Amino acid sequence: MTDSADRAALTVINVFTVDPSNQDRLIDLLTRATDGLVDRAAGFVSATLHRSLDGTKVTMYARWRSLEDYEAMRRDPGPRPFLEQALAIATFDPGMYEVVRTFLPKADAAE
Amino acid sequence: MTDSADRAALTVINVFTVDPSNQDRLIDLLTRATDGLVDRAAGFVSATLHRSLDGTKVTMYARWRSLEDYEAMRRDPGPRPFLEQALAIATFDPGMYEVVRTFLPKADAAE
Repeated sequence: MTDSADRAALTVINVFTVDPSNQDRLIDLLTRATDGLVDRAAGFVSATLHRSLDGTKVTMYARWRSLEDYEAMRRDPGPRPFLEQALAIATFDPGMYEVVRTFLPKADAAE
Repeated sequence: MTDSADRAALTVINVFTVDPSNQDRLIDLLTRATDGLVDRAAGFVSATLHRSLDGTKVTMYARWRSLEDYEAMRRDPGPRPFLEQALAIATFDPGMYEVVRTFLPKADAAE
């Protein structure tokens, strides 16, 4: 089993805040930016799209091989129209991270 | 290979904002809350702790079997002292989500 984190030096966690009436539209725009565009970029490892239970947020969690690969994708005009439409209906709190540590359940977890 | 997301109905993405001089201390507090405490809770699936490259954020990304399991853990007094110390040096933007979709690299990615 390959742990994709091993080859992903950069984790990007982008939190979008949106009116609940626009949450579905924002999800559609971020899906269109990713599916067939961002997911073809050099150095793209994985991305998971999340909808908040309260309707007010959409968060994309993505792993990249390097900061340089991510920045190259951001210069690509392909996904840009979808991202611009997303930013017309949502605010955006970007974050670039490295993983400190992953925790799994302790063996004596009270299941 | 088991995809842990299959049995995790809830994803919790908590973004802490902190003065860069306190980022290491915040990471230590969140580690102490998780290691041996939260990771023993019923329904805990996994958690990954992230430090932002700019020093101003720490984000915990965690998966839980259910919202009920997560809420039960939040009532547990064990991790609370560490979380209270964390909130004394950081602000906290919580988020509870469900996964919409995961993207992996397209086969013809330009590698």
